[in-house]
Amino acid sequence: MNKYLISNFFKDLQNDICKDLEIEDGKSQFKEDLWERTGGGGGRTRIISNGNIIEKGGVNFSAVYGEIPSKVKNYLNVEGKIFFATGVSVVIHPLSPMIPIIHMNVRYFEIDNNLYWFGGGIDLTPHYVNKKDAYYFHNELKKICDKYDKNYYQRFKKSADDYFFIKHRNETRGIGGIFFDRLNEINENKTKEELFNFVKDIGNSFSRIYINLIRENKNKTYSDKEKLWQSIRRSRYVEFNLIYDAGTKFGLETNGRTESILMSLPPQAIWLYDYKPEKNSKEEETLNLLKKGINFLEYE
Amino acid sequence: MNKYLISNFFKDLQNDICKDLEIEDGKSQFKEDLWERTGGGGGRTRIISNGNIIEKGGVNFSAVYGEIPSKVKNYLNVEGKIFFATGVSVVIHPLSPMIPIIHMNVRYFEIDNNLYWFGGGIDLTPHYVNKKDAYYFHNELKKICDKYDKNYYQRFKKSADDYFFIKHRNETRGIGGIFFDRLNEINENKTKEELFNFVKDIGNSFSRIYINLIRENKNKTYSDKEKLWQSIRRSRYVEFNLIYDAGTKFGLETNGRTESILMSLPPQAIWLYDYKPEKNSKEEETLNLLKKGINFLEYE
Repeated sequence: MNKYLISNFFKDLQNDICKDLEIEDGKSQFKEDLWERTGGGGGRTRIISNGNIIEKGGVNFSAVYGEIPSKVKNYLNVEGKIFFATGVSVVIHPLSPMIPIIHMNVRYFEIDNNLYWFGGGIDLTPHYVNKKDAYYFHNELKKICDKYDKNYYQRFKKSADDYFFIKHRNETRGIGGIFFDRLNEINENKTKEELFNFVKDIGNSFSRIYINLIRENKNKTYSDKEKLWQSIRRSRYVEFNLIYDAGTKFGLETNGRTESILMSLPPQAIWLYDYKPEKNSKEEETLNLLKKGINFLEYE
Repeated sequence: MNKYLISNFFKDLQNDICKDLEIEDGKSQFKEDLWERTGGGGGRTRIISNGNIIEKGGVNFSAVYGEIPSKVKNYLNVEGKIFFATGVSVVIHPLSPMIPIIHMNVRYFEIDNNLYWFGGGIDLTPHYVNKKDAYYFHNELKKICDKYDKNYYQRFKKSADDYFFIKHRNETRGIGGIFFDRLNEINENKTKEELFNFVKDIGNSFSRIYINLIRENKNKTYSDKEKLWQSIRRSRYVEFNLIYDAGTKFGLETNGRTESILMSLPPQAIWLYDYKPEKNSKEEETLNLLKKGINFLEYE
């Protein structure tokens, strides 16, 4: 299976996810911006906003190639001349604070037609962590992982905890999920096809998992209090993405398309000085669950 | 003049600025948080919010000392054992989009009781750039600079343009101002007292300059359109501070007090995908003035 086959899968995946989300939202449609990269390749940025369910969301596809910029070589710690990178990135900011924010990325990278790897993951950022959803989400990811490797879930769950961590707040961005990188034949002792099947499975599961989480929570009522908390949690999302997220940093530093990269930011956010939730509130309970190393599978 | 005298000046400056701003605001008062630094020193964070004029503002004083962490040595490119750093930082986010955001920092740094330098600056971020205010602001700064060195204004104006630049947006944060660093006897061929007098003059001018800008603009009417634009401009302020600002990065990386560092962030911000102002609108006019190298003194 060559890079074009992989790239075509990602393109189809973008189509499928956009269609699924539009139907579930029932009001708004995605708008598309095509862009080209100086040096080779380009992408399809698709943004939905002001929906019934989704306040702002992006589903991006890109396939870029060309000479490897020296910054990219240093960043990835690789040698070579020509790279090819393709993938899909999804970030959904729902209108209701009772529905979680979700992020997924699946990607493929290749150098000089020989070295390659897959990377990606899915992670969930509930404004309010509830144990039922946390169990559901992690268990669904574990079921997918287990089909391919019995160690994947634990390994990639830990990577997500470590990656989606807001150091200066000493809190995780959300309840994590799975995060993986540099999966290839040498590192994983699996065929390229097996690895691609795993990545496909993750990508194809996105709509089902997120739509179930939407349906589970969309009829929950909320007031100004929950909306305020949502805005505060969104500010932490901004802090993570602008300070720590490797993809964002890398994209901006290598002159990627700013609006496609920053589509991940929430529609709005609030910063209150030294805000602390009330003792024993739902908000405090959520903060207590934004920690590394929690086994959400125990919440069955 | 020793470090305690300088530190005491900064402490008094914080008191003066807070008093001046409270009187001008007429509604809200600053609240103080005292904090201590593990390793030596501490600070007084003062925050005002929900005022008549000021939606969110911070005036921070700190004086910290101790062994120089290796990160700090690398960052500052210095050798030595013991450091002492003191200064005042101010960021004011007004409620009205017609009043500009302002930022000032004045600071003093010393190593092993011999090497020292002053740094700082003032810069203005109007949501709507108007030429009268831009001229007033830059001309006031030039008048102060000229008292000490006829080259200061041009030199430090250029530094501000270069520093307060949002690369991925290809726009400046605001209309700049002055920015200076590492002013000491060796670099400037001036006495320590002369340099301190310059820094004092900058600090002492803050209230007068900003209060004049408040009075000039506070009775201007605005609608939802201007409030939306303010929120968009605030999102750019967030992007600058979290991605590029050296003080923010440095503070967070060296485990500074997060809430004191991030007091600079606006009360709220909005991110719209690929927002472009209407042709020939006030908003577009503002964007056209967020460029490096504009001579605002020409607007007399």
